[in-house]
Amino acid sequence: MGKLYVVGIGPGSHEDMTPRALNAIQNADTIVGYNTYIKLIASLIEGKKVIGTAMMQEVDRCKMAIEEAKTKERVAVVSSGDAGVYGMAGLILELALKLPKNERPEAEIIAGVSAVNAAAAVLGAPLMHDFAVISLSDLLTPWELIKKRAAAAAQADFVVALYNPKSKKRIEQIEQIRTIMLEHKSPQTPVGIVRAASRDGQSMTISDLENFTKEPIDMFSLVIIGNSKTFSQEGFMITPRGYEV
Amino acid sequence: MGKLYVVGIGPGSHEDMTPRALNAIQNADTIVGYNTYIKLIASLIEGKKVIGTAMMQEVDRCKMAIEEAKTKERVAVVSSGDAGVYGMAGLILELALKLPKNERPEAEIIAGVSAVNAAAAVLGAPLMHDFAVISLSDLLTPWELIKKRAAAAAQADFVVALYNPKSKKRIEQIEQIRTIMLEHKSPQTPVGIVRAASRDGQSMTISDLENFTKEPIDMFSLVIIGNSKTFSQEGFMITPRGYEV
Repeated sequence: MGKLYVVGIGPGSHEDMTPRALNAIQNADTIVGYNTYIKLIASLIEGKKVIGTAMMQEVDRCKMAIEEAKTKERVAVVSSGDAGVYGMAGLILELALKLPKNERPEAEIIAGVSAVNAAAAVLGAPLMHDFAVISLSDLLTPWELIKKRAAAAAQADFVVALYNPKSKKRIEQIEQIRTIMLEHKSPQTPVGIVRAASRDGQSMTISDLENFTKEPIDMFSLVIIGNSKTFSQEGFMITPRGYEV
Repeated sequence: MGKLYVVGIGPGSHEDMTPRALNAIQNADTIVGYNTYIKLIASLIEGKKVIGTAMMQEVDRCKMAIEEAKTKERVAVVSSGDAGVYGMAGLILELALKLPKNERPEAEIIAGVSAVNAAAAVLGAPLMHDFAVISLSDLLTPWELIKKRAAAAAQADFVVALYNPKSKKRIEQIEQIRTIMLEHKSPQTPVGIVRAASRDGQSMTISDLENFTKEPIDMFSLVIIGNSKTFSQEGFMITPRGYEV
């Protein structure tokens, strides 16, 4: 019985991938992942067996990885960012734990630099204080619950990071979230939008809660909405920790 | 005028530090940081000028780093985990932006694997869905606001990660947070406690909301409280993303 490594490869560049993740990938017999992430590590996995799948085949992908680990020594399942944040860590463990113990490969989760931390670094220091992370994808979560979470986070003055803010088909949700945020936060609250952090074509914009949805936002974007103390200055978005300066 | 690198060194082990962070440290003329973090990278900085300070001297530390960058080419300010999560990124930028442009060193923020992601990997996959990060330290934040945030996060069924849950002097807050959580979450909600993730002496415990404050918790611990779907099984704490499995 082999071992599964569930690997967060970081936001994109190999410069942002930890040695632990790199070793797990380089030592693996088989690499399993969503095709877009496989491309990010193509130069590291030449000659290896690769099981790449399209988006929205997460369950199949994880089942294939577990099956593969029954005959191979080491199988690496890759997620971008951190595998434990909307990644493959949970699904691999859920599926593995359904198997009888003698048919179950060992699993190790390897943390990576999460997309929210990478995006924050591009903007300056927008997190820095208590923050909430919310995915706007309603494929697996009822939209009413997502709205409830957004309202609760806004009302308690959290910095709010939005994953999956918008896609080609899903364009209205971000407007609804903006309306919810405006019920609790000032229209001048800084909002940072980072696209493709740490990848080719990285871009960032700092706008405000009143106007940010006029900016280009897509499924590769991460949106960070400040708290009541957040300010923007000369291309940086900063949430003070609270020190007297 | 030199350049400041605000570097997240990751949770502890060099295996969890990105090449970008390693390069910034190795290429720096001067290293500035809290003594505990300086020790974690001692083997990387032999022969370099080191400005180590005690805890709670954050403003002085950052002022020294900025001063140092006026005469040195490269200065690295190190934080454990990610420098943008309760780290030095915000303070460095706040202080630097107060200077006239011609006296201001350039600053680059380098993201690291955050403590919450490292702790989550040790526990299995407890984040995986929308989550809130809250520090229980009330040195810089009114305790009433911290309680308000905890209540909002619990009421909207976020997974909740607690930084600085307890110290030698501050032992009552975690009990108050437990009480607030119990108003909205089941007593059986899994709670993971990870101490010194990715460092020597790493340990973890999975308990529940009813009982977790009976476990050892200190300032090197990170506490993760599940949402209504989180379960624990055979030493893993898992929050399902919502796939049918």
